[in-house]
Amino acid sequence: MASSDDISTRPRVLILGGGFAGVGAAQKLEHADADVVLVDRHEYHTFQPLLYQLATGLLEVTAVGHSLRDLVGHHDNTTIHRGTVSSVDLAAREARFEDLPPMTYDYLVLGVGAEVNFFGTEGATEHAFPMYTLPHAVNLKDHLLERWDAVDHDPRLIEDGALNVVVVGGGPTGVETAGAIAELYRSVFAKDYPSIGQDEARVILVEAGPELFSMFKPKLREYATKALTERTVEVKTGETVAAVASNRVTLESGEVIKAHTLVWGAGLQGNHFVQSLDLELERGKRIGVGDDLTLPGHPEVYVVGDVAAIYDTKREQVLPQLGSVALQSGEHAGETIARRIAGKKTKPFAYKDKGTMAAIGRRAACVEFLAGRTMTGAKAQVAWATVHLALLPTNEDRSKAVVDWVGAALTHQRVGRFTVGKT
Amino acid sequence: MASSDDISTRPRVLILGGGFAGVGAAQKLEHADADVVLVDRHEYHTFQPLLYQLATGLLEVTAVGHSLRDLVGHHDNTTIHRGTVSSVDLAAREARFEDLPPMTYDYLVLGVGAEVNFFGTEGATEHAFPMYTLPHAVNLKDHLLERWDAVDHDPRLIEDGALNVVVVGGGPTGVETAGAIAELYRSVFAKDYPSIGQDEARVILVEAGPELFSMFKPKLREYATKALTERTVEVKTGETVAAVASNRVTLESGEVIKAHTLVWGAGLQGNHFVQSLDLELERGKRIGVGDDLTLPGHPEVYVVGDVAAIYDTKREQVLPQLGSVALQSGEHAGETIARRIAGKKTKPFAYKDKGTMAAIGRRAACVEFLAGRTMTGAKAQVAWATVHLALLPTNEDRSKAVVDWVGAALTHQRVGRFTVGKT
Repeated sequence: MASSDDISTRPRVLILGGGFAGVGAAQKLEHADADVVLVDRHEYHTFQPLLYQLATGLLEVTAVGHSLRDLVGHHDNTTIHRGTVSSVDLAAREARFEDLPPMTYDYLVLGVGAEVNFFGTEGATEHAFPMYTLPHAVNLKDHLLERWDAVDHDPRLIEDGALNVVVVGGGPTGVETAGAIAELYRSVFAKDYPSIGQDEARVILVEAGPELFSMFKPKLREYATKALTERTVEVKTGETVAAVASNRVTLESGEVIKAHTLVWGAGLQGNHFVQSLDLELERGKRIGVGDDLTLPGHPEVYVVGDVAAIYDTKREQVLPQLGSVALQSGEHAGETIARRIAGKKTKPFAYKDKGTMAAIGRRAACVEFLAGRTMTGAKAQVAWATVHLALLPTNEDRSKAVVDWVGAALTHQRVGRFTVGKT
Repeated sequence: MASSDDISTRPRVLILGGGFAGVGAAQKLEHADADVVLVDRHEYHTFQPLLYQLATGLLEVTAVGHSLRDLVGHHDNTTIHRGTVSSVDLAAREARFEDLPPMTYDYLVLGVGAEVNFFGTEGATEHAFPMYTLPHAVNLKDHLLERWDAVDHDPRLIEDGALNVVVVGGGPTGVETAGAIAELYRSVFAKDYPSIGQDEARVILVEAGPELFSMFKPKLREYATKALTERTVEVKTGETVAAVASNRVTLESGEVIKAHTLVWGAGLQGNHFVQSLDLELERGKRIGVGDDLTLPGHPEVYVVGDVAAIYDTKREQVLPQLGSVALQSGEHAGETIARRIAGKKTKPFAYKDKGTMAAIGRRAACVEFLAGRTMTGAKAQVAWATVHLALLPTNEDRSKAVVDWVGAALTHQRVGRFTVGKT
């Protein structure tokens, strides 16, 4: 903690959160004449778009989580601490922590992310498996493996729905997770447990709206439904979950599905810390920002990533909570602070949409480019893999992801197909 | 569990344990006209010689643990179950389990491994970190990271010895672990925590005998001590640990070392299950076997790996508890059973010593070949890596180990440098 007590004449930039937004900011501040301090609850950064691959054993933990010290710890002006923020005194320009001494700042980058929003669904807090953090993905994987193992020990559990999975949400998280679980079941577990019939293990995707992938063009929406159905995922649109228990999912329509697993890929809200700040919050409990990403009335405070409600004047909508928005907003904040410290001119934030993509399974993906061109199938899968590889932080990560993906494609094996327990 | 109830006229081979011995046996039985059932407490196989690399973040969990289903699950005649054996009725030829129905057998391969032996050292059960299983290595890594993080939050812990590590045992496990921890401290943590002096973080290796590496030639023993000392490991020979507390290690000589971590790499004994069998056990509570590896009076029971006391008539000694002995004994049992089922002649077990090797750190290893030739330094490191790569079960594992090792060598970064907690 020496750095926070040192007497320095350089401005201190405090970055709260080590996700895409916080790391993006830190990277743009590497050469700034400033003391940069990055604080996150964990010592690792999570590559959220690949969480579903961790949950289904396609990638290992270290391909999806990366030490923050490896990512930005080598910057000469940057210090990293693991710590949990408890409050920010905007007037005094000071952050307080549950487990670190208080820290004043000259610039604050607030990129603390969001929390899963169960929209008050009965039983969801206790029984649903959300998909937003690294532990979420590990928990889901361990649970799926444990349920198959339980059925191996007591086949009567099958009738109680032990192997059935309900996935909530027809956006990328829900679609990719449902597709990956179906593939895990049909290509891997089918061989591992030859005595268990695959029709005893249903994967059901539930979406409230009339179609999957509402952010894609109609052609791609249809493709997604077709590709999932071919992969034995049962798609239920126009339907929502009313209640969850440990072995039952009740839909609004009254239908009761026997299932020991409900995956929640359906919504986010500002986290508890943000809700405790004395700010007026926008829809989804996000913090509204100006076109330079600063908090109104606080030009020294930048709000970025999933916690920010960034209104895009060109598209006339608030930008979605996506990794690309988080990364670009964090980079903009970092770059702008660096320019202000150097006495240079700054400019407002403009999101560059590089297209949207999602992977549904082996040789099945959707890509929608900015120009409106679309791509599906095996070609789109290659495009998807290429873009995600480019986003991975290091060459080692890229090499290992390729090794895992090629290995899985050739052998139908999954590297992460086991749980490390306590003994 | 269908397989165990099926009516089959083929003999059933029950393999208890999925370590080097059990997997070796299963591999040799792939084409036997038998029903092979492999049961292990976990669904994974552990590559024990690399546990210390997992503990120090050089390799990830999936490079050291491998799904048993990936390794032998594709054999047409083989079924795998996770289960914990509770007893074996040798007369009835039946194994009983804590969590599976009882299973009869025609042939039994007993490869259940060993347990760490603390030799009654006071406080060791509560406070020592053993190094025999995958969870052991993960626990040690998590603990080391947690202690550095605790010091980052409260530097006063340094004076209490929070960063000091005592490693017990001058064999390969102790030497390799001590060398790897010293390297992790000096090359990685030195950069991560620049405000913490490295002389505040001692690594001390304690060995009861007069020298390290008693199984090597004198030239290599001296090399090991020199290489460790150069890497700032303090080597104390002719010394044993009398007692361990959470923050103190007391040596037999009366010296008290402030240390929050004690790694135990000093001894094994037959596990509780073996101790519960009604058998006369040999030194280290191992089961004595004939020269064909069968239990005396039970030609249908093969005892292999760390749990067996295999007397080598050529060397006039019991073979050490090493991965190579386990693999070869397991393969011999599997091959012999296959030959017996096919009505072919069998032959006694003969261990082929392919040399001994250990890695002390970057560009430092010892290799002793069978012919008595020795090798040290960077060349030996390459030989060590080559041999271990050859032992890894799949091409993917090899590729990823190379990616991790090359990455660590080039950047001094460690892939596994973070803990995944519950939230």
